[in-house]
Order: sequence, then C-alpha cells, then structure tokens
Amino acid sequence: MRAGILVTGTEVLTATIRDENGPWLSEQLSGLGIELVEILVVADHPGDLANGLDHMKAIGIDLIITTGGLGPTADDLTAEVVSAFSGREMELDTAMEAKIARILARFAASTNLDLTTDALNEANRKQAMVPVGAVALDPIGTAPGLIVPGQGDGDPLVLVLPGPPRELKPMWAAALEQPLLRGVLDRATQLSKYRLRMFGTPESELALSLREIEDGGLPFDGLEITTCLRKGEVEIDVRYREAAAEAASRLRDEIRRRHERSLYSLDGSTVDEIVAGRLGGRRLGLAESCSAGLLAARITDVPGSSDYFAGGVVSYSNEAKRDLLGVDEELLREFGAVSAEVAEAMAIGAMARFDADVAVAITGIAGPGGGSDEKPVGLVHFNVRTAEGGVRAAAPVIPGGRRDVRERSALVAMHLLREMLP
Amino acid sequence: MRAGILVTGTEVLTATIRDENGPWLSEQLSGLGIELVEILVVADHPGDLANGLDHMKAIGIDLIITTGGLGPTADDLTAEVVSAFSGREMELDTAMEAKIARILARFAASTNLDLTTDALNEANRKQAMVPVGAVALDPIGTAPGLIVPGQGDGDPLVLVLPGPPRELKPMWAAALEQPLLRGVLDRATQLSKYRLRMFGTPESELALSLREIEDGGLPFDGLEITTCLRKGEVEIDVRYREAAAEAASRLRDEIRRRHERSLYSLDGSTVDEIVAGRLGGRRLGLAESCSAGLLAARITDVPGSSDYFAGGVVSYSNEAKRDLLGVDEELLREFGAVSAEVAEAMAIGAMARFDADVAVAITGIAGPGGGSDEKPVGLVHFNVRTAEGGVRAAAPVIPGGRRDVRERSALVAMHLLREMLP
Repeated sequence: MRAGILVTGTEVLTATIRDENGPWLSEQLSGLGIELVEILVVADHPGDLANGLDHMKAIGIDLIITTGGLGPTADDLTAEVVSAFSGREMELDTAMEAKIARILARFAASTNLDLTTDALNEANRKQAMVPVGAVALDPIGTAPGLIVPGQGDGDPLVLVLPGPPRELKPMWAAALEQPLLRGVLDRATQLSKYRLRMFGTPESELALSLREIEDGGLPFDGLEITTCLRKGEVEIDVRYREAAAEAASRLRDEIRRRHERSLYSLDGSTVDEIVAGRLGGRRLGLAESCSAGLLAARITDVPGSSDYFAGGVVSYSNEAKRDLLGVDEELLREFGAVSAEVAEAMAIGAMARFDADVAVAITGIAGPGGGSDEKPVGLVHFNVRTAEGGVRAAAPVIPGGRRDVRERSALVAMHLLREMLP
Repeated sequence: MRAGILVTGTEVLTATIRDENGPWLSEQLSGLGIELVEILVVADHPGDLANGLDHMKAIGIDLIITTGGLGPTADDLTAEVVSAFSGREMELDTAMEAKIARILARFAASTNLDLTTDALNEANRKQAMVPVGAVALDPIGTAPGLIVPGQGDGDPLVLVLPGPPRELKPMWAAALEQPLLRGVLDRATQLSKYRLRMFGTPESELALSLREIEDGGLPFDGLEITTCLRKGEVEIDVRYREAAAEAASRLRDEIRRRHERSLYSLDGSTVDEIVAGRLGGRRLGLAESCSAGLLAARITDVPGSSDYFAGGVVSYSNEAKRDLLGVDEELLREFGAVSAEVAEAMAIGAMARFDADVAVAITGIAGPGGGSDEKPVGLVHFNVRTAEGGVRAAAPVIPGGRRDVRERSALVAMHLLREMLP
C-alpha cells in the first residue's frame, strides 16, 4: 500500500502560504501504517495536475490524495482533471446541488451579500458535478469531496479533498467511513512506533550513539529510525513491525542509558505537557524581558492553564522592571538589565506581585543590536524559584538570530521548570 | 524557462520537520522571473529520487534543484543518483577531498571527538566524488554542492544543494556566480509584481469583486493574480509582464476603490511594520488576558521595538488584573473579567503603570471551556487608547479554536492600533 499526496495551489507553490495539509495527511497515513512515497506541489494549472496524476500512477502508487482546487472559481479544476484521469464522465448530482444551494442560502442570510445571481448558481452547479461511479463527500464549506476509483484493476484510487485545512480535516474523517476508501487502506500493515524527546544533546552526538549501538550488535534492519532537530529539541521516531519489537525496545534502553540527562520524554509527551502536569495545584508568575510574552503565551497555549497561571509582567523597559517588579535601580545601574542579579530580583518581584508559588524570570539580549564583548547577543539570564526556597539560575549564550534567541529562551525556561518541579 | 524543486528527506515527508528550502527557493526563482512548475518531496530512497528526476525531465523542466541527501552517511545518495540520471561517471575530486579533510580537521580540533577514523576518511572520500563535467560548489558545512549538465541538448540542468538551510542559502548565492547555471537562468523573462494586503474583507467577497472587475472590461490575461488567506488577512499578489503594466495598475485602483476601508497596504508592508513606524516617538503599554503575551511578543518581534515598547502585564487571573493594573474588584464582580468595562479599566491601568502614551487591553474567552450563551467562546473585548484621549473599543466574536482566538486577538489589536495612530 503506497500513497502519494498531490497538493494543488499556486499560492503554496509560490510560497505565499505554507502547506499544512501535506504534513497533516502524512501523519494520518503514518498512523494507518501506509507508506507515503511523495508529496507533489503543483500550480492550479490542469496540465500540471494531470502530469502529477500520471506520474504517480506510473510509479505504482495505490492511493492518490489531492488537496485544493475544489472552489467555485474558474481556476478550480481538480474534479474535472481527476475525472478525466480516471476515464470517467461527470454528471450533475442533483441532491448535491440542492445541498450546496442550501449552504449558500444560509450564508447569504447571514450576510448582506446578494448571492442569488446567475454566476453563483452556475458555480453551485459546477461544484455539484460528480464523476460517474465516484462517491461524493458532503461539503464542510461549500465544496464536496470525492472518492474516485480507477477504470482498471491496478489503477490508483483518488481521494479528492478541499484545500482549507478546516474543511479538509473533518472530510478526511468522513472519507475514512467510506467502504471504497477503507478497502484500499485495509491493505496496509500496521507499524508500531514510539517517539523520544531530548533536550541538550546535539543531533550529531545522537548520530554517533546510534552508530555505536548498531556496531555493538543491535540489528537495525527491522527499525525505521528518524531523528530530527525540532525547535531546539531532538525528536527520535522509531517505527517497527511486530517482529522487531524487541530490537525497538532494546534501542530505547540503549539511548536512555547513554543520554539519561537529556532524554526527558519516553512516550512522546512534550515539555509543555509535562510542565502543565507538574504545575497543577501551584500558582505560577512570570517576569519576561527579551522573551517578551513568549513564555506566557506558551504556558497559556494549554487549555485549563488558568488553573495555575496567575500572570506575568513583560518588563521590557528598565522603568517597568522597577515599577512593576520592584527591581532596585541600584542593581540595574551596577549590573545592567541583563545580569544574574536583575534576573533574581525580577523573579523575586514576580513571586511577590502575583502571590505565586513558582516564579520564572528571563532577561537577555535578543539582538541584532545591543551586544558587547562582555555580554554578547544571545546571552540570556534565567532565574527560576519556588516559594519553598528552591532556586535554579542559568545564563547560556543562545545561538541564532533574534527570533531564535527569543523562542529558545522560552524553551530553556520550560526545561528549567521541568527540572525544578518534582 | 521552467524549474522544478526536488526535496529529498524522509523527515520532511513524514512531517517530522517542515521543509524551509522549497518555499525559500521558490521565492528566489520568482525573483529571477523563473516559472516554478512543481515541488516534489520524496524519501531518502534512491529509487524515489530517480523517479522524480525522470518525471521532471519528462514534463520538460529545464532546471531541477535538489535539496538534501549530501551527507556522509549511507542513506545520502543524491550525488550518485543525479550522476546516473545525467549519464555521467563519478570521479574523485582530490582538491575537494583535501578541502573537506581540512574542514573536518578544524571541526575535530574544536571538539573532543576523535575523528581520524577510517570510517570518516571514507565518508570524506564519498563526499568528494564529482560527476565528470559537473561543477563542484565549495562546502559550507562539509558537503560540496554540484551543478550537473545533462548529456543531450534538451536535458535539464541539475543543481544539487545540501539540506540544512544554513548551508543551502549561501551555496545558492555561490551557484548564481557560475556561468553554467547563469546561462540557464538568463533565459527567463523578468516579471514585475506587487502585493496588496486587506483585513476585514472575506476572500469570497474579493473573488466577487475580481469577477466584476474582469466583467467590467479590464483584461486579466496578462496578469497572474493570486489571492490568499494568510493568518486572518487576505493577500493579493499580482505578477505581470511589462505589456500588462497598465492593466495591473488599473486593477490595483479598482480593488482600492471597492475595498477602501479594508485594503490597508498597497506596497506589501505588513501591519506590524506600519504600526512599528507609527509608534516611533511614543511609549506603548499593554494589558493582555486571553492573548497572554502574544501581542507583546508580536510587537517585540521587530528589532528596535525597545525604543517605543515600555512593557505589558499578562493579567491572566482576576487578582493580577486588580493588583497589577488597578482594576476595581467591583467591576470584575459586576461585569465579569470579559467585559467592555474591565477592558477599559485594564487599558487605563496599563497607561498609568507604564507611564505610556498608547495602551491596549485585551480580555476574552479563548476556550475551549468558559463560554456561555451571553459570552460565547471567541468573544474578545478590546480597548485601545491614547494619552491625548483617543479611544477605540471593539468586541468581536472571533471564530475558530483556542489558538485561532488567541492569535487573531493579537492581530485585531494590531489593526486597531494602526487605525488609531496617525
């Protein structure tokens, strides 16, 4: 069972928009144990789309998923091109036409637009054309999806999905209920997998470890190992068939043994999830300077975080550090805003102002300007403390540009919180 | 002149990592007036890569750019596969071998790793193998790039670049200096382009306008118009050859006339850039509840923002609203934390605490819980004010999930600031 994803969209090809659908569908296919052979991005030109379909058929792909090109406008041609590719005529699905008309009527009623023009009726009819023998999937927006079988026995099945991720995701779920698609998907073998996460070990060092583990006699041939540097952490994905389960388990033990300090997640859980769990029943207060709200935003990205997150001060100016956190002006003058002393005072201030049990302070030089020999761009001081008297301070020089330094600051703070909280 | 990009990388295909190189190269090609036909992502399997090269040749692509697969390990096979595709033998480039050896020696000296093993020498030699007749590009990391001409006259030229963006970008610049690549690139015609940005007009309404403008007699055939919904705004890209310059200019005037209120950028500048410009010489203070630092993070994403950004309070709890912003407890009890009254009090508090000229307050229900009939999930109250007495309040119900509501809140606030500041 081999699949291909065909993304249509000039705006994706020209890098105006990032494709979310390809990666999302890739994860869904992986979860179903289906091998994804390629993702092809083409413009909204029928010729390019047809070339892509022919190519995927030629290399023996069983399931082609297209995304996009189902809208009402003239450049939306996916349904027609797929229909021709599968050697099927298109016919008007009158039930679907009525459904789309009802959706448009509801939309018109909720706006002041006059939508009962001929052009719209024509667009409605265009979207209700379905290849003979295909299954039409109910619209989430106004465009129906399609499951289109080939003519011959070895021909690929084509699943036609809309481009907007909010429409695509629920329609994928609906498509999975259809026997025509199920029949193809069920030909796949399930793979088991696990994901490890590390913070603080470079990917190159992990690569050396993996080589040593293999040289040490652990067979890797039943394992598919992917390592990836992702937002400052290393992720290790291991996929395996049942026969390689013992090797997969031994591999996990070996990595754990060699990287005990940096390997923080054995079950794929993120540092955000772990910290959220450990903050339960406490009250967190923040004082951020260079990260300027990114840690607060990260903490509150988790639903229910209001149970433990009291608040934060983004003390970008010295006056804000003084007036809102009570940092002594003397400290600012003597040690500068980016110093262990000011980080400590900021954390103590946040603890007091938010009446918190745990406080985090971050102050650093995000760049591009403001660095010196003594305090280079990327230098960030952290101070994490608990009301019971626990303290952790750190002052790494974080590499990269302004955005890297700011985002990595929030990440380092998350890991300091993780290490600090039992 | 038609180009294709071939991205190799199992980690990209499996959505473990996002591909940055495809979009970046797409923008470079567009800047050079070269039509990008497709981006194809394949795993690190030589067969899949060869299939991709054959497909691109078959559809008449003149320039293929590959990214990735140049490393020292056994699954890095791009150079070999491209060499076979172009019908060329590989030979050892001894000068390149010496260069790589020097790079590895420097790397070894800067670490404690013992890198003088046979395996490494072998890897070094592998990376120094160059197809006969190809141009080798000096390594940025340890892997050289390649420019490989085809055997026949209509065969595509293949530019082979490394996967890490930090190596790919400088190597692309170096490749542009090479006559072999220049000769192919110079066959392209330059396109002019402009970008408009709108906030507050749905994409469907813009589509109606475009149809009306075309029906009204403005010829679109020399224009390539791409509209795209991006992070809550609509972007319109128009590309055109010189002959269609007048039509392009008339199109801009027509869109402007019809959407004067929502069309805020005629030159592609972002709301962040516009607001940063208008904040110059002022002092901004923030009070954020549901957006919890996202507006502060967005404001400070701009280098030099410390000149006008004083700071912010992330007042997630009611106590923080009271203690750090001076919001009257009576207001919180009577109207609730998500109300016009509390938003106003938060903004007034931020103005005072940060001694600011401009203040913004955001308080809303990000969900998924916490909504009611009267105050549904997505309801967000904004209050933007200036020290001179200007005030703007708004309370939209923002659609989408928790993340959408939070991010869109910061966006709405940026636009309120833009409208408010002269």
